[in-house]
Amino acid sequence: MSENRLLVFQTDFGYKDSTVAAMYGVVKRVDHTLEIIDSTHELPPFDIWSASYRLWQAMRFWPEGTVFVSVVDPGVGTSRRACVALTKDGYYIVTPDNGSLTHVAKYHGIQAVREIDETINRLHGQGTDETSVFHGRDLFGYCAARLASNIISFEAVGPAYDSSEVIQLPIEQPFYGTKTARGIIEIDDPNFGNLFTNLKTDALLAHGFQYGDRIRITIMHAGECVFARELVFARTFGEVRPNEPVLYNNELMNLSLAVSCGSFVKQYGVGFGSDWTIAAEVIQ
Amino acid sequence: MSENRLLVFQTDFGYKDSTVAAMYGVVKRVDHTLEIIDSTHELPPFDIWSASYRLWQAMRFWPEGTVFVSVVDPGVGTSRRACVALTKDGYYIVTPDNGSLTHVAKYHGIQAVREIDETINRLHGQGTDETSVFHGRDLFGYCAARLASNIISFEAVGPAYDSSEVIQLPIEQPFYGTKTARGIIEIDDPNFGNLFTNLKTDALLAHGFQYGDRIRITIMHAGECVFARELVFARTFGEVRPNEPVLYNNELMNLSLAVSCGSFVKQYGVGFGSDWTIAAEVIQ
Amino acid sequence: MSENRLLVFQTDFGYKDSTVAAMYGVVKRVDHTLEIIDSTHELPPFDIWSASYRLWQAMRFWPEGTVFVSVVDPGVGTSRRACVALTKDGYYIVTPDNGSLTHVAKYHGIQAVREIDETINRLHGQGTDETSVFHGRDLFGYCAARLASNIISFEAVGPAYDSSEVIQLPIEQPFYGTKTARGIIEIDDPNFGNLFTNLKTDALLAHGFQYGDRIRITIMHAGECVFARELVFARTFGEVRPNEPVLYNNELMNLSLAVSCGSFVKQYGVGFGSDWTIAAEVIQ
Repeated sequence: MSENRLLVFQTDFGYKDSTVAAMYGVVKRVDHTLEIIDSTHELPPFDIWSASYRLWQAMRFWPEGTVFVSVVDPGVGTSRRACVALTKDGYYIVTPDNGSLTHVAKYHGIQAVREIDETINRLHGQGTDETSVFHGRDLFGYCAARLASNIISFEAVGPAYDSSEVIQLPIEQPFYGTKTARGIIEIDDPNFGNLFTNLKTDALLAHGFQYGDRIRITIMHAGECVFARELVFARTFGEVRPNEPVLYNNELMNLSLAVSCGSFVKQYGVGFGSDWTIAAEVIQ
Repeated sequence: MSENRLLVFQTDFGYKDSTVAAMYGVVKRVDHTLEIIDSTHELPPFDIWSASYRLWQAMRFWPEGTVFVSVVDPGVGTSRRACVALTKDGYYIVTPDNGSLTHVAKYHGIQAVREIDETINRLHGQGTDETSVFHGRDLFGYCAARLASNIISFEAVGPAYDSSEVIQLPIEQPFYGTKTARGIIEIDDPNFGNLFTNLKTDALLAHGFQYGDRIRITIMHAGECVFARELVFARTFGEVRPNEPVLYNNELMNLSLAVSCGSFVKQYGVGFGSDWTIAAEVIQ
Repeated sequence: MSENRLLVFQTDFGYKDSTVAAMYGVVKRVDHTLEIIDSTHELPPFDIWSASYRLWQAMRFWPEGTVFVSVVDPGVGTSRRACVALTKDGYYIVTPDNGSLTHVAKYHGIQAVREIDETINRLHGQGTDETSVFHGRDLFGYCAARLASNIISFEAVGPAYDSSEVIQLPIEQPFYGTKTARGIIEIDDPNFGNLFTNLKTDALLAHGFQYGDRIRITIMHAGECVFARELVFARTFGEVRPNEPVLYNNELMNLSLAVSCGSFVKQYGVGFGSDWTIAAEVIQ
């Protein structure tokens, strides 16, 4: 008998009511031995970009074969596909195919993807067949539980489709030159107010950037300059004074912006997404 | 040997300190193999109505025999009863008998109820015998753990009392006429700002309401009209433009109010409870 | 084969992104059968005092041998030690040695402490070796998982050092006289707005304080009087009217301040820490 897979959930449902509990109840009715782990239920409502980034952010640290469920689903009830994707490195993702797979597709690669067959892998008989607004509970949670408990195989999720059809949001590729680079502000660290770029620290070091360098940072949004300043590229926050902005190598090995013992986001009003670009240039 | 029951907790303790952890520690000391699932710890403080609704909202999706613990307990330390209720469909609820069982009593029915015998089923010897402010930890959590791990049977909780004595908050019954209905705004969806009425979609459809109809909605609070407008009864939010209000069939098969990609609660200042009434009439 | 230990986590990471999930993934890769329990991830950012208090607040209610992980780590990447402490009553704590052990050292006592050997008990090979900002994931979570799953013994954590070297924040000892006492406001109850002092109820009762007494309370902060008023020392909140301030014996057997059905913190603007002192005197 094969072992259950771990189930990791991220949604924008919040944790103030019983929405998550209803979804988890469905999982436990499928197989009460399934282990459920919260990633986060506080994704910004309707924000598919954040869902995509957060899904990617933690995935590689989990055991191969873990089943992730991601439900940020502004198009629930419309014609967007409900799918299960299998990444090239062996993780499963149960999600609306609405852009949530953008980062995983780009950074892990998708091996195969299947559309969930609602005639089989959707909750029925709980008096909720007529409602189409809560696919987290009735479709994604239920299907993920069946997959994680090996009631169904990946093949039994539903018909395969080409992974090139998976919806991807646009992400500008970073550019690296000698002691210069351009990218985007990819996401925030919502608790500490840091910002993560999509510039890889390894690539910067290979292009003449060094820890301790002073670097001119220019952040543009919608054609306007929002932030322009020389910052130190520090190994630790201790290298700058409290409330000073600083560049550092974040936990995912990307160039990032922080304010020591403070919030870069609040102090400078900088956001994230494809339309927030950053240029970095080593001061000679 | 009988198997452990699942334990699902909801409280108004918040998750910012170690209050929940202390309660869960007590559970794990009773039996460290017990599985604990958070429903929510962010119920509005002291709000028994919300506790009652949230308890009901998720219950039916869980396996029969699951033990729910609900602690919103403004009368802790007073003479309100501490009880375990068994619903007609086989769920256990460990809770102060202060109105928290209102929705479950009405919609599931209560098969039997017992007052917790504090001489047996209360935590002793942890240096907290003298305190009477934290029954979530010392009484409800402890007793629920003993029940879920089958250390005690339901009968050993304490003396039975008549289920007609269970405290119930008033809920006005909905009225359905031909193409017209009246009810209450029963609760909110705190993350998305939607509002759920106690009008059943099935009953509305049986009384001449149809998807696609334009329906005149009037919401009254304390004798004053707070909202009056014609809304579409839509199958999906995609049928109206962003920021437009809309009627829909919610995940529990009740008529509900939303703003597409927005918050009905914030946009129109509407609350919930027995004193928020709604009238719905199909436009001919 | 020895059984896994329970793992209880508290951090200031928040629960809005995948930071916690990345840390838990690392734990599950070490041993996917490990059980992880959230204490809280909403400690005030960088607040070591709160980390110390919250760690102590719940610990005694857990089974002996439980492994606690506490990560509030403003000095990450600097020379502060990363350690595992074993308390005199048999709990393990994996934490930066930065003051987080203050309350546990004072109230439980530390039996032994070891510095984590990063050459062995740090995550390697996940592409994050170069980053030094996320020890929750790469060091504390990883090491705790190895300890909890008995892959390593306590001795294999790393070299022992003297428990007298453990960093402790200053806490003024309470003073008790006949019908008078002085102490500090030690912490808040962030959900209900209560405040806990470090005055033990048992000691107060032994020095002539009685339930039902009227007691003059004076709260000073930085040399200024912030609150001065006579309050009733009540057994339950029901003894005063809603919105009235009251003294009570809290869940940890300490004298505490509340507003019935309200928030003492908000109503009176009182904070907590070593520099918030309280004097209590029974009115004759």
